[in-house]
Amino acid sequence: MQPLILHPDRLFPADAQTRSIARDLYRSVRDLPIISPHGHTDPAWFATNAPFTDATSLLLVPDHYLLRMLYSQGIALDDLGVRRKGQPSSADPRAAWRLFAANYHLFRGTPSRLWLDWVFAEAFGLEVRLEAGTADLYFDSINAKLQQDDFRPRALFERFNIEAIATTESPLDTLAHHQAIRDSGWTGRVITAYRPDPVIDPEFEGFRDNLARFSDLSGKDAFSYDGYLAAHRNRRAFFARMGATSTDHGHPTAQTADLSLADARALFARVTGEHVSPADAELFRAHMLTVMAQMSIEDGLVMQIHPGSYRNHNPWLFETFGRDKGADIPMQTGYVEQLAPLLARYGNEAGLTIILFTLDETSYSRELAPLAGHYPALRIGPPWWFHDSPEGMRRFREQMTETAGFYNTVGFNDDTRAFLSIPARHDVARRMDCAFLARLVAEHRLEDSEAAELAADLAYNLAKKAYKL
Amino acid sequence: MQPLILHPDRLFPADAQTRSIARDLYRSVRDLPIISPHGHTDPAWFATNAPFTDATSLLLVPDHYLLRMLYSQGIALDDLGVRRKGQPSSADPRAAWRLFAANYHLFRGTPSRLWLDWVFAEAFGLEVRLEAGTADLYFDSINAKLQQDDFRPRALFERFNIEAIATTESPLDTLAHHQAIRDSGWTGRVITAYRPDPVIDPEFEGFRDNLARFSDLSGKDAFSYDGYLAAHRNRRAFFARMGATSTDHGHPTAQTADLSLADARALFARVTGEHVSPADAELFRAHMLTVMAQMSIEDGLVMQIHPGSYRNHNPWLFETFGRDKGADIPMQTGYVEQLAPLLARYGNEAGLTIILFTLDETSYSRELAPLAGHYPALRIGPPWWFHDSPEGMRRFREQMTETAGFYNTVGFNDDTRAFLSIPARHDVARRMDCAFLARLVAEHRLEDSEAAELAADLAYNLAKKAYKL
Amino acid sequence: MQPLILHPDRLFPADAQTRSIARDLYRSVRDLPIISPHGHTDPAWFATNAPFTDATSLLLVPDHYLLRMLYSQGIALDDLGVRRKGQPSSADPRAAWRLFAANYHLFRGTPSRLWLDWVFAEAFGLEVRLEAGTADLYFDSINAKLQQDDFRPRALFERFNIEAIATTESPLDTLAHHQAIRDSGWTGRVITAYRPDPVIDPEFEGFRDNLARFSDLSGKDAFSYDGYLAAHRNRRAFFARMGATSTDHGHPTAQTADLSLADARALFARVTGEHVSPADAELFRAHMLTVMAQMSIEDGLVMQIHPGSYRNHNPWLFETFGRDKGADIPMQTGYVEQLAPLLARYGNEAGLTIILFTLDETSYSRELAPLAGHYPALRIGPPWWFHDSPEGMRRFREQMTETAGFYNTVGFNDDTRAFLSIPARHDVARRMDCAFLARLVAEHRLEDSEAAELAADLAYNLAKKAYKL
Repeated sequence: MQPLILHPDRLFPADAQTRSIARDLYRSVRDLPIISPHGHTDPAWFATNAPFTDATSLLLVPDHYLLRMLYSQGIALDDLGVRRKGQPSSADPRAAWRLFAANYHLFRGTPSRLWLDWVFAEAFGLEVRLEAGTADLYFDSINAKLQQDDFRPRALFERFNIEAIATTESPLDTLAHHQAIRDSGWTGRVITAYRPDPVIDPEFEGFRDNLARFSDLSGKDAFSYDGYLAAHRNRRAFFARMGATSTDHGHPTAQTADLSLADARALFARVTGEHVSPADAELFRAHMLTVMAQMSIEDGLVMQIHPGSYRNHNPWLFETFGRDKGADIPMQTGYVEQLAPLLARYGNEAGLTIILFTLDETSYSRELAPLAGHYPALRIGPPWWFHDSPEGMRRFREQMTETAGFYNTVGFNDDTRAFLSIPARHDVARRMDCAFLARLVAEHRLEDSEAAELAADLAYNLAKKAYKL
Repeated sequence: MQPLILHPDRLFPADAQTRSIARDLYRSVRDLPIISPHGHTDPAWFATNAPFTDATSLLLVPDHYLLRMLYSQGIALDDLGVRRKGQPSSADPRAAWRLFAANYHLFRGTPSRLWLDWVFAEAFGLEVRLEAGTADLYFDSINAKLQQDDFRPRALFERFNIEAIATTESPLDTLAHHQAIRDSGWTGRVITAYRPDPVIDPEFEGFRDNLARFSDLSGKDAFSYDGYLAAHRNRRAFFARMGATSTDHGHPTAQTADLSLADARALFARVTGEHVSPADAELFRAHMLTVMAQMSIEDGLVMQIHPGSYRNHNPWLFETFGRDKGADIPMQTGYVEQLAPLLARYGNEAGLTIILFTLDETSYSRELAPLAGHYPALRIGPPWWFHDSPEGMRRFREQMTETAGFYNTVGFNDDTRAFLSIPARHDVARRMDCAFLARLVAEHRLEDSEAAELAADLAYNLAKKAYKL
Repeated sequence: MQPLILHPDRLFPADAQTRSIARDLYRSVRDLPIISPHGHTDPAWFATNAPFTDATSLLLVPDHYLLRMLYSQGIALDDLGVRRKGQPSSADPRAAWRLFAANYHLFRGTPSRLWLDWVFAEAFGLEVRLEAGTADLYFDSINAKLQQDDFRPRALFERFNIEAIATTESPLDTLAHHQAIRDSGWTGRVITAYRPDPVIDPEFEGFRDNLARFSDLSGKDAFSYDGYLAAHRNRRAFFARMGATSTDHGHPTAQTADLSLADARALFARVTGEHVSPADAELFRAHMLTVMAQMSIEDGLVMQIHPGSYRNHNPWLFETFGRDKGADIPMQTGYVEQLAPLLARYGNEAGLTIILFTLDETSYSRELAPLAGHYPALRIGPPWWFHDSPEGMRRFREQMTETAGFYNTVGFNDDTRAFLSIPARHDVARRMDCAFLARLVAEHRLEDSEAAELAADLAYNLAKKAYKL
């Protein structure tokens, strides 16, 4: 067994002087509360406050970062405890955990390793490294802790010093869990975000059924374009009452369009019909981004665009195991021509905030920094998904800052359903931002006092301000 | 008030040994004269030698880097002293300066900050940092200095140790200012460059009017293809007599074509007609790049291609305030297939020099370095515009050098209309090149003596040679 | 004359602590045997074991890295000893060598310089640097050594500690040299690889003639689709008997397709006819990648895909001097949609190994790492060609590791015909991998013992395993 040690200087540059600057900056932001303005935790956890079950179902099975890496090396998802659609899991949770432990070396050099080691050491107090020989020790220790009251969701939320966290729901969600949290008297701030892809994307599974439910929930006829817009306004207002400060849009591309009312009505009629062409589907999504921007100007919700993921690239895996198993692959994503229609209409609105994300790092210096460095309505979201990693964060700051500055960025998003890793993720971001600032100071490109102010802005203030939290 | 200090080691790597090497290299090139082979200073300054007016109109209003960043954070251009088309400025210059000063923190981590701090400290001798509290001190001090004889354009030119500077004019310019400079007896070398976009791009504002003026100035009938080519030859010869050693071409793409004479004549007839299709416009621009290369072989002018900017991306801003306000956005730009027609015709001409620029850094290692590392006619221009920055320069050397070497690059271009920042821009380039060379020496990839030779080549010799200055 | 020194710490980071870690890691892998699983050495060298002729014909004329850089600076290929098609060389080898020596400064900062300095110092024991003044000393010394028995191919192979090397042959090769090596009793492991481009790419020179020869060699009728597939199976089996463990596919793009048998037969009839459309040629190449994957599942050969090179970009040069003179230029290359048909069919086969290469570094973090980090059948090849360089390797690890991990990569390929440089190339890779690992250790992202294990995996074990050697 080997000791599990989280070195206090981890992720800081090796150069002694730069490291010393980074260490000082980090010390000043390490304990700031966590603002988590975008993510995928389950509000039911905080509504029911039931204990988590076991290590495998909490830490392994829902984590698509882990599943994809293990799968890529020939390990069957079944053996990791992932259920086939419509079937019970055939794997023993302990056996799945052992398999994971025996392959933990696969994560060397990846952010999963950083996050998990933090969870093991800091959240669970484990003192030896995960490997085949410690698999059972881990499994038993973690399971035992999870039964303690101080490992229930609300206790962890408080221990993690979370000031506010946003979950993500579709307009078809009743937000019953959020209501339950509010009714419970617990003061943890868990809010929702409006993610209307299921009723905006004509290619979404069950689109027409979704519109029927959208009509029911909103009391508007979502099968006419005017009623459809009214339904959005209705549900946005409901979400805002339940704390939402933002919307989110997960389209395949960043394409926008700005149709006349007549054209929009005609298009709506086509995409709600039996057969929808891919071009019409794309045009409708594009047009609705502009409509959503207009509604954001009206109701103040911050708009997030997360484009460029080729979802479910592996058809057999999708059919067998379903979504979110690590088979979503980034695509080349353009923003300049794509966003032009929306920006021509609303780009100069200083009261509107659109936060752009990308899975295509080539857009950082070429497109996103110049766009956000000009349009008042635009801000740049933090490095996303595959790029939410030390090197990804370094590239983000190096490629964005000189054109967009720091103040057109919006702090960190953890964007995760892996609740226990949230502090670790924010910690990595704080360390990497401090490391970047330290280099600027060491190279005499920034004064110490400026770096200290920026460290707090990047760790806390910018997220709070951009997301109106 | 906080002290304004330009640290002598700024931009050098933090590692002590590497920094020491960088410092020695930099010391050997710091005082070399400035070769500024491509830029946008106003020849009228040097022709009239009139004093500059005030801080706001000299340093803020014409600088699109500053305007776009301030605008991106919701500051109105009107309040910065930018005039709406056809209207006088409504802003008080001092109020505009104060607004800029109060927002100077937005430029942290950007090259504008580096350039301006140099201008404040070195050109104007200011000793405190720009912020809200020092805005008036700055405004008054700068304005007072600008009335002194040693702050007139020619005095600054000499103080800046500029050996040669090129401005950029269209063929429709009479070059009266350049003539006046020559006639004045002043020995500063201010030359022009031939930028024919207004008479080559059928989509340029007033294209047909431009051709009429082109005919007048050249004495050739620019409405027939043969006369049009003769007009180019005539104006190129005139520009060369006025010192030009280069042409410049700012096309949306790097597309080239090599049409037969008959096809070229037919295309010319179409693009000079009433309605020009986008495809014809693109084809004509593409063909004319090849024609320009042919004329460069004849007259020896070095050819520069600056493709890939989506001009005036913000239609409201363009209509209200006009061009060059920070709303030009880079686009993805390909070179391999695009340049093939021109290169098939003239790429093997060792007597021809075509300098390629890009706003798309993805082309560095994939396209530009391999192309320039093969074709005798090609050289690679320095990092341009958004990439004229410390990190941009670092990426340029790291991604270009291993395939193109140093000797297919051409030193530095400041490419600016911000005259006072020219020494600062060259200084940043010299520091960053020395930092890169120092790393190669510290990692034992280059000998000291080679690095010293290269430092001088990158700072001075290569620009002089490539641009025939 | 200046001393030629290979510094023992070359390519290691300057930071003292990181360098010390790198040095220790490197010491542990420096002397591991060389696995060279993909390259272009000439099997005739090892079959005949004849001495190499002279410095110019061994080191300069066949090296397209050198030719292109010298040519890019206006040096005629004729003067470097390159023969025009159908003509004898007009250059004196000594004069060509002198020209090369006088221009050796052009390679500063390039990997060619690193490789050649190793060849000069370590292989030939030269102690002064190559420059105009030492050209004759070099030429004479090298030529003299080449006549010694210990500089014959097999002696060098043994001195270089090569455990296995793969050459690359087309199905039209009889593998007579490989047979001769086997028959000779020499124990050096020189194996072939199956590169069927000449019989798969309908746009390959002499495609139909190639099919005729393919029929002859395989005893199958390669002009019917079923016979054509049988011919592949026959030749693949023959190659495997001659030691091949892999195939290689050098297509212009990574496009794949998965046609029905009827469609495939119809397409085959079209592409073996008189006039082949570019679209049909592309579709046939695309389909055959999927067929090759199927055959790899049957016979166990590892599949390599090397897409994205625009071959013979310079038509005059190609007509005059032929292929492989440095005029191949990388193109933008997509993998996500392109590989989808093949992966939908065979991507979940853990028994299949497809190794992907790219000349487009933008695909590293966006496409290749996510794909290989999910599909069991995929692995990522090392940085290729223009990117087989220190900075290229650094970018590869920095952009791949966090998503793909280390274990979806396959160690190093030298991919060269420059036999003498093979140890230098592996040495550069080992040094750069150790430098990368050392940074992870210094930043406390990896433990020492893990780094040591990884260093050996990257230098030796992964190549051996991935290529089944």
